[in-house]
Amino acid sequence: MNEIGKEIYSFADRIYPIGRSITGEGVRETLRLINEELSASGCPELTINEVPSGTEVFDWTVPREWKIRSGYIENEAHERIVDLAVNPLHIMGYSIPVDRWVDLEELKDYIYVQEDMPDAIPYVTSYYRERFGFCMSADQRDSLPAGKYHMYIDSELFEGSLTYGELVLKGKSDKEIFFSTYVCHPHMANNESSGPALSTFLIKYVNSLTDRKYTYRFIFIPETIGSITYLSKNLAHMKSHMFAGYNLSCVGDDNDYSIVESRYARTEADRTLSNILEKSVKYTRYDYLKRGSDERQYNAPGVDLPVVGFSRTLFGEYPEYHTSKDDMSYVSPEGFAGSYDIMTQVIDLHEHNGRYRIKVLCEPQLGKRNLYPTVSKKGSYDAIESLTNFIAYADGTNDLIDISNRIGVPVSELIEIKDKLSAHGLLENAYEQ
Amino acid sequence: MNEIGKEIYSFADRIYPIGRSITGEGVRETLRLINEELSASGCPELTINEVPSGTEVFDWTVPREWKIRSGYIENEAHERIVDLAVNPLHIMGYSIPVDRWVDLEELKDYIYVQEDMPDAIPYVTSYYRERFGFCMSADQRDSLPAGKYHMYIDSELFEGSLTYGELVLKGKSDKEIFFSTYVCHPHMANNESSGPALSTFLIKYVNSLTDRKYTYRFIFIPETIGSITYLSKNLAHMKSHMFAGYNLSCVGDDNDYSIVESRYARTEADRTLSNILEKSVKYTRYDYLKRGSDERQYNAPGVDLPVVGFSRTLFGEYPEYHTSKDDMSYVSPEGFAGSYDIMTQVIDLHEHNGRYRIKVLCEPQLGKRNLYPTVSKKGSYDAIESLTNFIAYADGTNDLIDISNRIGVPVSELIEIKDKLSAHGLLENAYEQ
Amino acid sequence: MNEIGKEIYSFADRIYPIGRSITGEGVRETLRLINEELSASGCPELTINEVPSGTEVFDWTVPREWKIRSGYIENEAHERIVDLAVNPLHIMGYSIPVDRWVDLEELKDYIYVQEDMPDAIPYVTSYYRERFGFCMSADQRDSLPAGKYHMYIDSELFEGSLTYGELVLKGKSDKEIFFSTYVCHPHMANNESSGPALSTFLIKYVNSLTDRKYTYRFIFIPETIGSITYLSKNLAHMKSHMFAGYNLSCVGDDNDYSIVESRYARTEADRTLSNILEKSVKYTRYDYLKRGSDERQYNAPGVDLPVVGFSRTLFGEYPEYHTSKDDMSYVSPEGFAGSYDIMTQVIDLHEHNGRYRIKVLCEPQLGKRNLYPTVSKKGSYDAIESLTNFIAYADGTNDLIDISNRIGVPVSELIEIKDKLSAHGLLENAYEQ
Repeated sequence: MNEIGKEIYSFADRIYPIGRSITGEGVRETLRLINEELSASGCPELTINEVPSGTEVFDWTVPREWKIRSGYIENEAHERIVDLAVNPLHIMGYSIPVDRWVDLEELKDYIYVQEDMPDAIPYVTSYYRERFGFCMSADQRDSLPAGKYHMYIDSELFEGSLTYGELVLKGKSDKEIFFSTYVCHPHMANNESSGPALSTFLIKYVNSLTDRKYTYRFIFIPETIGSITYLSKNLAHMKSHMFAGYNLSCVGDDNDYSIVESRYARTEADRTLSNILEKSVKYTRYDYLKRGSDERQYNAPGVDLPVVGFSRTLFGEYPEYHTSKDDMSYVSPEGFAGSYDIMTQVIDLHEHNGRYRIKVLCEPQLGKRNLYPTVSKKGSYDAIESLTNFIAYADGTNDLIDISNRIGVPVSELIEIKDKLSAHGLLENAYEQ
Repeated sequence: MNEIGKEIYSFADRIYPIGRSITGEGVRETLRLINEELSASGCPELTINEVPSGTEVFDWTVPREWKIRSGYIENEAHERIVDLAVNPLHIMGYSIPVDRWVDLEELKDYIYVQEDMPDAIPYVTSYYRERFGFCMSADQRDSLPAGKYHMYIDSELFEGSLTYGELVLKGKSDKEIFFSTYVCHPHMANNESSGPALSTFLIKYVNSLTDRKYTYRFIFIPETIGSITYLSKNLAHMKSHMFAGYNLSCVGDDNDYSIVESRYARTEADRTLSNILEKSVKYTRYDYLKRGSDERQYNAPGVDLPVVGFSRTLFGEYPEYHTSKDDMSYVSPEGFAGSYDIMTQVIDLHEHNGRYRIKVLCEPQLGKRNLYPTVSKKGSYDAIESLTNFIAYADGTNDLIDISNRIGVPVSELIEIKDKLSAHGLLENAYEQ
Repeated sequence: MNEIGKEIYSFADRIYPIGRSITGEGVRETLRLINEELSASGCPELTINEVPSGTEVFDWTVPREWKIRSGYIENEAHERIVDLAVNPLHIMGYSIPVDRWVDLEELKDYIYVQEDMPDAIPYVTSYYRERFGFCMSADQRDSLPAGKYHMYIDSELFEGSLTYGELVLKGKSDKEIFFSTYVCHPHMANNESSGPALSTFLIKYVNSLTDRKYTYRFIFIPETIGSITYLSKNLAHMKSHMFAGYNLSCVGDDNDYSIVESRYARTEADRTLSNILEKSVKYTRYDYLKRGSDERQYNAPGVDLPVVGFSRTLFGEYPEYHTSKDDMSYVSPEGFAGSYDIMTQVIDLHEHNGRYRIKVLCEPQLGKRNLYPTVSKKGSYDAIESLTNFIAYADGTNDLIDISNRIGVPVSELIEIKDKLSAHGLLENAYEQ
């Protein structure tokens, strides 16, 4: 497990430095590295899709593509006090070009800082109104001497496209398990190099399940406009095929886990992830009112997909969020390993789940199958409590989640029991999902 | 708001001194003053109905009408120690005539006091068995010297009628909002000059809503026999038209608010008043087991109307209840103003309620409509939280109450949001009630 | 009540010493004594059924019958250190024959003790694998000197039968109330001479209800294999006729009461016994996960009968359980009397239950029927609160249990109210069960 954590961490570190935005070369480079990683493991690669600027996507329009070649502020001595090349966060996302000398006072109109964390550079964007801006630490801003400053951004907004990657791994059923993560945040670790890195390794895991029941759909998109774009092209298919979906974000730190519930907290994804978290780890259950990532689109009225959010510490709930402090020291191999463990448990549960029914009336005679102690004395019953309780509720109306919740036993243990009873011919699946 | 409180208080003070009972001139005089008040405001007047004594009303019979001309006890010195003319409470309601000298001991058989509040005159009646009686403070009774006393009541029980007033204000829909209050309690303020006074001013408010959706029905009746009589004449219409109803009683003091739930606490009136109280003020939720006023009849098996009770301090829960201490100092303009505010909020909610549905798939782009901050940075989302949460649940299955309860925002704020989104063409009402 | 407690205790004491097992003469002797007791009270007797060894009963097979003539361990001095004749618990149930001298070390391989209660003989069986064994106190075992010991058991496993008793007392309806208890535990008092003793006296009670509504079925069986056998012969009838069922075990001590809920805790038996316990006594509600007696079979998937368990202290929850300390001093006349009171209340509730509906609209006029105080003053309403609350919920959708739970009044009081209102012609039963 530690090994897998290290691998995911290491891959996250590769995509971490890239200057991503909702469109442009940063996204493409990230998707290229993911495909390199998948290919090296013998996995199929993501399909890369380009959606032209100007495409109408529901209430929105795919924006012009943003290209940035250079961006900095220099002082009178021509020293660059902030520079895109040093940290992409220094330039407000989607900044339009500027090339102008101003004095300190005017410069400050274009500087964004995070006052409550004075040594961090904040992450700021302005996608839908033309602006430019620079981000720096409040400390730096406050130490700037009076004088002239050169604001320089060599960027371009042009009719290009929005880029995303997707991969479908077919299973026996055309019902789909869906994973979504986003590739638009520049140069931050937990939010968001961690989601794409984890998703990449979940693809490898699913690919290793050669006899899988479900079809799995993974997408790597820019947040908000990307999920809206994806939905505008795929909504009908998704509504008719999606069995459960997970939005992965902030999955690399090693604090407690989080689920962001779906709109009414009653989808298969809610049931599944809640059960795994409840029986495995410490976690916080966030109401849909605390949503913040693409679960907002997947759960929107009329979209109504069964998608929950999965995180370690939730976005917005850790001080480093959306600042330069969200770096590779904030995430860890252990953090990734834990998230990977939870999500592979989720996958396993989907694969093994069913509404099992015991095939005999009354309790089966476990003794003759060596499943029960043959001497009956005080306490002899305890040892097989999970087994007999499983049987007591294996009436064809409960799936493994129901039984786990009812009898208080993790599904991983129930899967073993289910397999053992099936091997003895005592169990049937009353409902093949 | 204070102004309206003063007006209601002042009108309550006009009807306060009247010696009302379940039948007779007190009721008629009260209804006459209400019509005078309505007429002065350009409102339509109540229709006055007279139901003859002896009329069968479900399991009951309209009783004979009670007329009282005079009533007192005098001592040997011919001093009147209690007198109807001083306080109508001194004579037990529905007392039959008496004209008899007795000694102190026998007199006491006919005296009712309230032992636990020795300086108050209690309110006592005997509608359905022929009796006479006198009410006074325990202090007064205990200070009476031995001697002869003259019990004198000049009253009459005769084949007259039971009187009530009603007013229907038509709206676009024939679905009705119902208000009931009672006009049978003599010379007490909160219970019950306050209910008729508030109802009178709610008529003025509804009359001012010229474009109103609902039809409103107001009735002013004697308690119990009046509501039973009214139901016996109107039940079929009420069952097919009533959308929500409110019984108003004890609405003039300025303590916390109360709701008396309906029989199963699941009517539209329960939902509506509960939401307004929950989001506005401190209040107590009383189970239907604590019912005590005409909600008993409206909720009876087979009647099954969606009626809740609304009060400040509930009847029976304040020591002054049903005594001479329930006078105009127990109620206040602030108390009336608060009750008026709650009930006009209730009316507004009924008028604006609907199951709204957002007309676009995925989140609408609020930015292009200037409904969203254009710079995205930490915290920029918070400012429009109520708006986006409203949209998240505007899926055509939730009405404003559901959304208010779900997202924790008062309906008054939601009505503004609903109007703003409608103005942008983003909202439709999925269910015109 | 004390009288009945003494009678039940006394009868339990008669069957207490018998060396019962799941088959054999102990069961037959117990059933013979029960029939003697029933017959002496003019009750019909149990039918005795014999099911041949080898009969397939669902997943099980009726075992060979066990007969034991003699069993002991003797030391070199030919002193019997344990002896069946002294206490049947000394011989492991279903022991096969043995006649062998061994030294102390080997002897210990065949000795069962209860380490945590060193002065008690444990109750141990091995029904389904051929073994022999001896039970004694840990103290005794630890004091045995080295030397040779003679293990001697003269027993026999042969093609005989499994024995049980049943009695059906017909009522007006063919819907059945079911009582099950077991007669396979040797020489212990609470578990299990108490269940058969209580059941015997419940038969007498039901027999005394000459105008009874329900049919009552009582069975006296060996645990597990007996209920499985009984179900295999009667399942279709039981599924179509059983209205509520009760498994009686450990009902003679005078500690708090227990209910073991059915599989989903939503049967008529759950509702009925829960209500009686809740309103009468201190009790513990045990989830079906704490099941342990024949409710395991009655509630098994596909069997699905509405059966709960009733006990004082639950099996396994008292230290004396399944040891020689569970003797007649552990149970008491008071304990039996309490259990009898609860179960006869359960029977009474079944007999009187219905969904009653008040036959008038609005509140009935109680005054004219002398059911209501005629002077109305503060507090006069309280005295008849149960009556008016009953009426408020007598709408034809609630049975006595619903009303009791809703208004917080014991059903015994509601039965009186129901009878009084019925006598006044005010009530009808909307649903004849």
